[in-house]
Amino acid sequence: MNYRHDSGEGIRSVRSVLAPKSIAIVGVSDRGEGGWSRIMFDNLKSSGFPADVFLINPKRDEIWGEKCYPNFAAIGKAVDHALMMVPASAVCGSLREAAKAGLKSATIYSAGFGEGGGDAESVARGEELKAIVDEFEIKVCGPNCMGGVAVREGISLYPSRRAHNLKQGGISAVFQSGGTLQFWIEQASARGIGFSYAITTGNEVDLDLADFLDFFVDDPHTKVITCLVEGVRRPGALMAVARKAHAVKKPILMVKIGRTEEAREQAKSHTGALAGDDAVFDAMCRRFGIIRCEDLAGMVELAMVFDQGRIPCRNRMALVTTSGAVKGLSLDAAAAVRESWGQLSNYTAGKLRELISSISEIDNPLDCGPAPVADSALYADICRAVLEDDDVDMLAFLARTPLTAEDPDHPRAASIAELAARTDKPVFAFAHLARPTNDYARNFQEQTNLPFIHGIPRAIQAMSALARYGESQRRGIADIGQKSDGTFEIDHLNDLVGNAGAALPAERHATNSDQAIEAANEIGYPVAVKLISPDAIHKTEVGGVKTDLNDSKSVKAAIDDIESRLKGRVRIDGYLVQQMVEGLEVIVGFREDPQYGPFVVVGLGGIYVEALKDTALRLLPAGPEDVREMISELRSRSLFDAFRGQPARDVDALARSVSALGDVFIGLRSSLSELEINPIIVGAAGQGVRAVDIRPVARSSQS
Amino acid sequence: MNYRHDSGEGIRSVRSVLAPKSIAIVGVSDRGEGGWSRIMFDNLKSSGFPADVFLINPKRDEIWGEKCYPNFAAIGKAVDHALMMVPASAVCGSLREAAKAGLKSATIYSAGFGEGGGDAESVARGEELKAIVDEFEIKVCGPNCMGGVAVREGISLYPSRRAHNLKQGGISAVFQSGGTLQFWIEQASARGIGFSYAITTGNEVDLDLADFLDFFVDDPHTKVITCLVEGVRRPGALMAVARKAHAVKKPILMVKIGRTEEAREQAKSHTGALAGDDAVFDAMCRRFGIIRCEDLAGMVELAMVFDQGRIPCRNRMALVTTSGAVKGLSLDAAAAVRESWGQLSNYTAGKLRELISSISEIDNPLDCGPAPVADSALYADICRAVLEDDDVDMLAFLARTPLTAEDPDHPRAASIAELAARTDKPVFAFAHLARPTNDYARNFQEQTNLPFIHGIPRAIQAMSALARYGESQRRGIADIGQKSDGTFEIDHLNDLVGNAGAALPAERHATNSDQAIEAANEIGYPVAVKLISPDAIHKTEVGGVKTDLNDSKSVKAAIDDIESRLKGRVRIDGYLVQQMVEGLEVIVGFREDPQYGPFVVVGLGGIYVEALKDTALRLLPAGPEDVREMISELRSRSLFDAFRGQPARDVDALARSVSALGDVFIGLRSSLSELEINPIIVGAAGQGVRAVDIRPVARSSQS
Repeated sequence: MNYRHDSGEGIRSVRSVLAPKSIAIVGVSDRGEGGWSRIMFDNLKSSGFPADVFLINPKRDEIWGEKCYPNFAAIGKAVDHALMMVPASAVCGSLREAAKAGLKSATIYSAGFGEGGGDAESVARGEELKAIVDEFEIKVCGPNCMGGVAVREGISLYPSRRAHNLKQGGISAVFQSGGTLQFWIEQASARGIGFSYAITTGNEVDLDLADFLDFFVDDPHTKVITCLVEGVRRPGALMAVARKAHAVKKPILMVKIGRTEEAREQAKSHTGALAGDDAVFDAMCRRFGIIRCEDLAGMVELAMVFDQGRIPCRNRMALVTTSGAVKGLSLDAAAAVRESWGQLSNYTAGKLRELISSISEIDNPLDCGPAPVADSALYADICRAVLEDDDVDMLAFLARTPLTAEDPDHPRAASIAELAARTDKPVFAFAHLARPTNDYARNFQEQTNLPFIHGIPRAIQAMSALARYGESQRRGIADIGQKSDGTFEIDHLNDLVGNAGAALPAERHATNSDQAIEAANEIGYPVAVKLISPDAIHKTEVGGVKTDLNDSKSVKAAIDDIESRLKGRVRIDGYLVQQMVEGLEVIVGFREDPQYGPFVVVGLGGIYVEALKDTALRLLPAGPEDVREMISELRSRSLFDAFRGQPARDVDALARSVSALGDVFIGLRSSLSELEINPIIVGAAGQGVRAVDIRPVARSSQS
Repeated sequence: MNYRHDSGEGIRSVRSVLAPKSIAIVGVSDRGEGGWSRIMFDNLKSSGFPADVFLINPKRDEIWGEKCYPNFAAIGKAVDHALMMVPASAVCGSLREAAKAGLKSATIYSAGFGEGGGDAESVARGEELKAIVDEFEIKVCGPNCMGGVAVREGISLYPSRRAHNLKQGGISAVFQSGGTLQFWIEQASARGIGFSYAITTGNEVDLDLADFLDFFVDDPHTKVITCLVEGVRRPGALMAVARKAHAVKKPILMVKIGRTEEAREQAKSHTGALAGDDAVFDAMCRRFGIIRCEDLAGMVELAMVFDQGRIPCRNRMALVTTSGAVKGLSLDAAAAVRESWGQLSNYTAGKLRELISSISEIDNPLDCGPAPVADSALYADICRAVLEDDDVDMLAFLARTPLTAEDPDHPRAASIAELAARTDKPVFAFAHLARPTNDYARNFQEQTNLPFIHGIPRAIQAMSALARYGESQRRGIADIGQKSDGTFEIDHLNDLVGNAGAALPAERHATNSDQAIEAANEIGYPVAVKLISPDAIHKTEVGGVKTDLNDSKSVKAAIDDIESRLKGRVRIDGYLVQQMVEGLEVIVGFREDPQYGPFVVVGLGGIYVEALKDTALRLLPAGPEDVREMISELRSRSLFDAFRGQPARDVDALARSVSALGDVFIGLRSSLSELEINPIIVGAAGQGVRAVDIRPVARSSQS
């Protein structure tokens, strides 16, 4: 069993797909307007044919004024990459012929290769395709994809005029949905984003998400990677490449379809990709510093902000506006994120009062009132003063890209243009909401290295994403590979749990009330007394359990009562005297996800919380800090604080124990598929935790 | 005490502000570039001076080639509306002079009239302003606002070139934040929205939100009203106008600042307006059919969709796309709304299979695959087939406005252009995310009467908002005015609660075990026996309470045990024999909000749920259907269903009782400021509910 899920799986080179030296278009046609094959031919042509292009159609000698070959063999030399524009039924035959002629890789645009089941013919076609890939070691992108573009190389194999003539820049994109890429690129380009590569992978019969991500991580021009993911075929490879991206500080931004069960089902039937538990996927993203975006539009804003290439050194936000309404809307939006506002120092406050004597309140977010509306230089000074505060790690300020030199937005934008140059902290502008843009605006933005974000909630989300990424960089990625299996023996499970700081309540056997009192005195009060009897399965129902016994007299009375009522009716083998543990009931569960490996779930015990599904989840190993963070994510977190006269709970002890129990689970991974402590009782601060019930699930023999 | 909060408060006419026949600009200046006064003069000039315009500046005879008057008296006739562009300190003097000369109304742009406290001078200025308003019955808009525009009248009194030359149309807007309006209008205009009026009200020393809303409700050209609200000064007037808007089916869309405590505090200090509990405000919006928008950008999309003028007759959504990814993202987005997807009939499925033989799965949302990408007429047929399904009440379909006649988006958009004309159901297009737009796109959109929404989550939100509004139209607005006060007497509270279907558990007094057994036999088992004693305050601690007694033998044993242990130690006055009620513990609270009147809160009982703040809230009166809806909103709602071997709960009885208890609270409004039933025990289906503890809070004498 290899728990280092994020290693050891092969990454395949996508170079011949993204940077081919020669290209064949299979199935060129001038019927209609030539369709996709014509668009790609035109795209290549308008880029000055950066690769050799061969057209293949056995029925034609010439098309669009270019020579047409009947097949690959007729070309007379090996081709790097083939664009398969023929129907699904013709793909395998052509690909086999091409492979024999030395083809390195192909993009298959059509669907119908057994994705998500499909009919028998389609499934058989998929099998044949895989066989060709294996036999000839050819690389295949698709099927059911729309190819991609290599911007720097001038190669556009995406059958749309929308994703053509892109600006060169630091973003590379991989979308599993072919059609969606062009719309995302269109909006990203409109907002000034430049690209290195963009690729669609479709149903990934061969090359997949991880392969392209790996190429982008190695690409020196790529600074930020964006992706749209419907399903992950090789979780281990994805984690390995995410680890690599994390190490070189290249953020991966991701829209993942399947937050809901319905969408996961749909993704599975659409792409045939596995769709696991979203909470586990989320935990994986957190571990590896992958940033999940709310939606496609949000991924544009985050790409702009990350493209600035700055990561905050802590999590303290700041925001400057000239409008009380914007301040209020920012505060409302901030409730959805975990970051907090920097506390402006007295020094900063003094500087601000000097700058704007009329200001009513100096706080953060800062509404500096109407004075700086007319005085752009003043506004820049205010922003700078806030940004330079030691408790501010990043700044968003209200400003819009000017559309012309005469635009009323120009003075303000121009005055703050040097803000980015004067600091290493992330700093960006935001507008109230979306707005028109143009080349002037894009150029302005590029020259200032200031992203101009659209929307107040987006600005807050962007600061939060920056902070989360910075935190993941500071924390690093824990490595389960270091934890060895077989360290522990399952027979010692109770001791192992005890050593992890969650000892079971003390208990003693007794045969009569004198022994029971002795036992209770040893254990300490309060205790519970439970009848031991083969006849009394439901001890509580027959009155064989007495709880909350606070002194020896109560212990004696309890046993006398049980004996007087039950003697002769059930067999009495003796009594169990148990320590009663007071505190908050918590459930801790350890399980293994088939895709992403072992994880821990923490939630409050009790019927209500099960109904409320109020749990937090992390991949293992989880350090005490991770557990503490999990508790802070619970909606019921206030129960861990002093509450309704109850003392605050021993969160430190819980965090240490859960972390140690995770190591126990990892160490028992040959024996256990699951381990649940339900409940673990969390005492008052300083009182520690106790596992009351330990439920191991043995691994079934086949795994 | 008047509980009909939404009536009886005066609405003031804003006609002279929004449609003045004559305007004076006070404080015109040609220093700098003339600032705001010049912008407004130019705006009026370029509209052909639709009103008489007088310039006032005592230091000048002429400015911008126009005659300048020293004051209002010098004009020689009464002026409808004055734009006060002078500093705060000069406003009152000028306004008094103007009022004496017959001025009807004024807009005050400057701040500094005691908003949110401020210094003594500022507060005094505010008082003086109010005194002038009262003395001369002059209408004032502002202070700290930026005026507005009357599009049809050609009058632009908003000091920005951004909010000028607006297209005429069905939207009227009222923003409390002056600066924000222009940015919202800019984006709304870019998206093709046309306006009737747009006004900023600032700190509302006189004319407020309700006054302008009322004018818009009466305006025959206004179809949809949008607003940005920081605080509501006259909740009763707002509710009255919302009721009126509801009656004539004019939707009010609102961004309300202050979902969070921080933002409410900020709004209060910024505007001086009251900021109450957001949950109560939300309940008020729900009652009166006011649609709260997520953010400013969301209000643009919703305004476009409501501007179509259609309301769905039920809540069943449908969505058509040619992309599996879009289908998945739609499903994810739909998890955030309460609407459900229409179930396509066999008839529709048959039609769809005829249209696209290649389709793999016919469901809703419908991914019709790649075939219709190239065949726009086919796409239109598919959309039509879905839209015509009886279980579909509205449709969103993937399509983009074309930017030119040659735009690749043109064929699809053109083919679906007649969709709206062929049905009364709401139907709109949506794009993956934001995208550029232009005049061609706007004209196209207008001609087709098809809104083109930006973003997948926005499309889902729009369908949900349409559905919510339709539901509020079907439900109507309950009227508390019909419920009369003083119907009930507080002395009969327990009986009133019992008559409301939530009788207290049966109980009997007993002096010995024989009487207790008799009482228990009458009441029915299980019972609890509780010691009655002046000495034993904490009955449980001394062992004076015995619960879950299932037969007469247990009752006798319980009393014998109490007597044997406590006789001689405490005085024993007898025993209370109480029916034990099994079921789910629920808290029901009735209170009165100072702004929006009486309301009910329902939540689960128990310590966890208090910590989780899992409650739902409605204004009174709340019908059984409202209560049922409240329960469905609880995160813990699954506890009302069969759960963990527990039977489903009697939600019907709970809904009837809570509704009736609301009427009891209203009927006791002279006596009670609060009424809490904690817990009310909800039995298994058919078993009804029982109030276990009733806690009335008497109204203090001064109210």
